[in-house]
Amino acid sequence: MPNYKLTIEYDGTRYRGWQTQKNTDRTVAAVLERAASALFGEPVRLIGAGRTDAGVHALGQVANFRAAKRLAGLEIQYGINDGLPSDVNVLSVEEVDDAFHARHDAVSREYEYRVSRVRTAFEKPFVWWVRDALDAAAMGEAASQFVGDHDFSSFCENPAGQTSTRVRVERCEAVEGGSKVLLRVAASHFLWKMIRRMTGTLVEVGRGHLAPDAVAAFLARPSREPARWTAPPSGLFLARVVYPAAGMPPKPRPAAPARRGPAPPRRRAP
Amino acid sequence: MPNYKLTIEYDGTRYRGWQTQKNTDRTVAAVLERAASALFGEPVRLIGAGRTDAGVHALGQVANFRAAKRLAGLEIQYGINDGLPSDVNVLSVEEVDDAFHARHDAVSREYEYRVSRVRTAFEKPFVWWVRDALDAAAMGEAASQFVGDHDFSSFCENPAGQTSTRVRVERCEAVEGGSKVLLRVAASHFLWKMIRRMTGTLVEVGRGHLAPDAVAAFLARPSREPARWTAPPSGLFLARVVYPAAGMPPKPRPAAPARRGPAPPRRRAP
Repeated sequence: MPNYKLTIEYDGTRYRGWQTQKNTDRTVAAVLERAASALFGEPVRLIGAGRTDAGVHALGQVANFRAAKRLAGLEIQYGINDGLPSDVNVLSVEEVDDAFHARHDAVSREYEYRVSRVRTAFEKPFVWWVRDALDAAAMGEAASQFVGDHDFSSFCENPAGQTSTRVRVERCEAVEGGSKVLLRVAASHFLWKMIRRMTGTLVEVGRGHLAPDAVAAFLARPSREPARWTAPPSGLFLARVVYPAAGMPPKPRPAAPARRGPAPPRRRAP
Repeated sequence: MPNYKLTIEYDGTRYRGWQTQKNTDRTVAAVLERAASALFGEPVRLIGAGRTDAGVHALGQVANFRAAKRLAGLEIQYGINDGLPSDVNVLSVEEVDDAFHARHDAVSREYEYRVSRVRTAFEKPFVWWVRDALDAAAMGEAASQFVGDHDFSSFCENPAGQTSTRVRVERCEAVEGGSKVLLRVAASHFLWKMIRRMTGTLVEVGRGHLAPDAVAAFLARPSREPARWTAPPSGLFLARVVYPAAGMPPKPRPAAPARRGPAPPRRRAP
């Protein structure tokens, strides 16, 4: 049975996030599954690399699915797009190795958060408007403290429900981008609301309400303060999902843990 | 009484056009008038330079209004913006000469129409998606034939209701812009649906369904064909309104015509 890898962009404004849910059809995965099922004439289930929240966008989400029929990549791309609303778009489709799993095999996820200092008529759904002056240099200094292996309890919704709150952040930078400040962050995985709380904290630094080394303090000692600064979903984009280069060994998969008591809640990101 | 000039951008998707109408509040001028009236504490009436249709956008619409109170430009800009929905934005405000009239004094209006050859998740409300291959060079050749003083009956909705269907087009070009073809056109005024029919005709040329010199033929002899190709409003932007440079004499105003019979319908553009 062919295994297909899709790269997808979407404007998340109208959706309740990526992940298919029992009580709503308004998820990005649901509209994609509906269009793919119609094209293949069989029920299609997507496996997505990143579970973006309601209102969060994607420039390069990745998902895979299996179907009995074998179709060419362009045929699938155009066929699915014809059945999609205009705010979801399949950028490319390729047939991949049977073992490929969009979520388990991803070695890195890159997100971008766009903070805008100016009001514009066209960008509200895609930025966080911050009216105060922002010191991007101070934000950049603070952002660099996120890099490394840390306990992100202070930046996570429901830390008690996570198997672990430790995350290794590979890259984190805040840079000037015209009238915006762009936060770019890469890690193997993210905790629920983590990037929006990192962003909210960096904006507090940019406003001069916090010193840049406050970030190191929040990483050293759990605090409820960053939760108060959670940035809105509108500014957040899943930019890219990285997989091992061809010929490289796949990422080792953890053995299924021996379950004790009820299953932990599934991880949501970011 | 101070006379204020506003430069405004808007996403026209949700609006029934610029012009205030009796039967709806969903016009761009209406939301601006409401916000300005609240700020000044008196009913404010806007005079707009260009009456954009439903779904048409603006990057640089110009309007003026008079109010008893004298406020600084930034105060007015921020004050009005605070009362506006997020898809309308005042870019600047300045106090101008008492005689300034946004519509009568405009010497030129510049529009841009964006035709996109690719489907994207973010741009549908701001382009016309055309799936067929487009020959931008042929479109450019055809576009140049619009330049000059011509009878635009073939490109105008309700030509019989216009005082004149002659328009002097100062500039008209179709150029490659990444995955798009951009039509840029400047004239002192435009007829109703004129740019959308010019665009539709140019796209027929781009598709190879018409020779570039078909444009000259439609200008020489009225035809109902361009009406069938009217481009959707989503791709159209009022880019800029040009006024005489400071120190130059204002545009001469036509004397009020002696009215005979019912008043002609007011001009709508474009």
